[in-house]
Amino acid sequence: MHFTFPQKVLFKHCDPAGIVFYPRFFEMINDAVESLFSDVLGWPFEEMLPNAGVPTAAFDVRFKTPCRHGDQLELRLTLTRLGRSSLSLTTRAVRQEVACFEADQTLVCVDGEGRPAPWPAPVRARIKDLMEAET
Amino acid sequence: MHFTFPQKVLFKHCDPAGIVFYPRFFEMINDAVESLFSDVLGWPFEEMLPNAGVPTAAFDVRFKTPCRHGDQLELRLTLTRLGRSSLSLTTRAVRQEVACFEADQTLVCVDGEGRPAPWPAPVRARIKDLMEAET
Amino acid sequence: MHFTFPQKVLFKHCDPAGIVFYPRFFEMINDAVESLFSDVLGWPFEEMLPNAGVPTAAFDVRFKTPCRHGDQLELRLTLTRLGRSSLSLTTRAVRQEVACFEADQTLVCVDGEGRPAPWPAPVRARIKDLMEAET
Amino acid sequence: MHFTFPQKVLFKHCDPAGIVFYPRFFEMINDAVESLFSDVLGWPFEEMLPNAGVPTAAFDVRFKTPCRHGDQLELRLTLTRLGRSSLSLTTRAVRQEVACFEADQTLVCVDGEGRPAPWPAPVRARIKDLMEAET
Repeated sequence: MHFTFPQKVLFKHCDPAGIVFYPRFFEMINDAVESLFSDVLGWPFEEMLPNAGVPTAAFDVRFKTPCRHGDQLELRLTLTRLGRSSLSLTTRAVRQEVACFEADQTLVCVDGEGRPAPWPAPVRARIKDLMEAET
Repeated sequence: MHFTFPQKVLFKHCDPAGIVFYPRFFEMINDAVESLFSDVLGWPFEEMLPNAGVPTAAFDVRFKTPCRHGDQLELRLTLTRLGRSSLSLTTRAVRQEVACFEADQTLVCVDGEGRPAPWPAPVRARIKDLMEAET
Repeated sequence: MHFTFPQKVLFKHCDPAGIVFYPRFFEMINDAVESLFSDVLGWPFEEMLPNAGVPTAAFDVRFKTPCRHGDQLELRLTLTRLGRSSLSLTTRAVRQEVACFEADQTLVCVDGEGRPAPWPAPVRARIKDLMEAET
Repeated sequence: MHFTFPQKVLFKHCDPAGIVFYPRFFEMINDAVESLFSDVLGWPFEEMLPNAGVPTAAFDVRFKTPCRHGDQLELRLTLTRLGRSSLSLTTRAVRQEVACFEADQTLVCVDGEGRPAPWPAPVRARIKDLMEAET
């Protein structure tokens, strides 16, 4: 795992069944990835726009255990593949070591017109460092 | 395709890049499936709870073309597999026949404790009818 | 009342108490106002940006009756005051004539830098027509 | 001020104009109030349901300065009036001492049927302590 993002399940995340409404899991994943870019990779989302961005091209998600209001989740991100302009990662959410969901995601680095663009050199370097510093 | 759900891309769906924020696509999919159950399958979500539910177990999504504010999308749902307590479907979102995203999804029918439960007979019958009435 | 916007209370709107999570009411109001501008006033939000906008300056809201999943709401908008670059309106949401919430809101027409700007002449004319055509 | 809640403006909060979409401000307020109840008042939202709740009865909000992606906000909550089953508070959001919005809000303590109920004695005591410990 390369980055950990704590997330308590809040009132706003939950549906009438008392469990997390699944689009909210994707907001959590987006928050975690945004935090990875600002806190570790040195390229905050707010500095990318309007000249660049990292939209998601694909998701493959398995929901394993319902998450309830008040649950203390930990989102654990593992970077799995770095391409010229892409990055694949897996987010595993756990609650006291019980797996809640797993999401495989591919991001693409794009320019201001939305065309794939190579990762900026310093960002690529930090991604590589992080991938090698397996924890 | 078995069910069509029109959705204009609204202000609330869009991010600072001017395109749909991806968790909002999952809200759109949830709205479309909710509408399928209430309008076609005769089992509205609001009548399921608290004794039953149809949570999503898995998603496999490919985002193909960015969607912009004002785009008139059409979500086209195709039911692909009916199990004892599961249902697989694919949602293809198109804008004037351009593919925007494709989402393969598996729902599970559960009881009030969240355990898989067989589809109620009339619901199963309607799902089968719909799958046979390929349009 | 000058504009009516129907809105079923959907699964996504509701919280663990089974009633609408209040930020979702503000999304509904925003959707209704967006629809007013695109369907009646001839100035869709997606055509304003990046050269103009109509942000909200103030809200005064009373929540009167909880709204539940499946409720068929009607949002009724009454335009109450047209200024040089402002517009005040009241949204009353009802369910079978039971009042659910009332929201007084003031919008401001702004230019691309966010500074107050006079309403475009054709938009002002349509707002005035609508206010005079009390229904 | 009685409670402070830091909130960075994230990608998910922002609209195509690059500023916070106002329903997201209400989510921030709800998060801050939820945190007040769990961290200070000793009555987490997740322990209230299904026997109690603290729905909002009214809001009076002034939006003063647009908030942009990346802004570091501080939500400052001041409790202004404690009733038998109500609590009024004001949330001021500031960014480096610039006022962003001010929201006057009234919560009502309700029982499981949604009827106003007196605050539980220990919660009332903690609210009073907090109101007297003006900081």
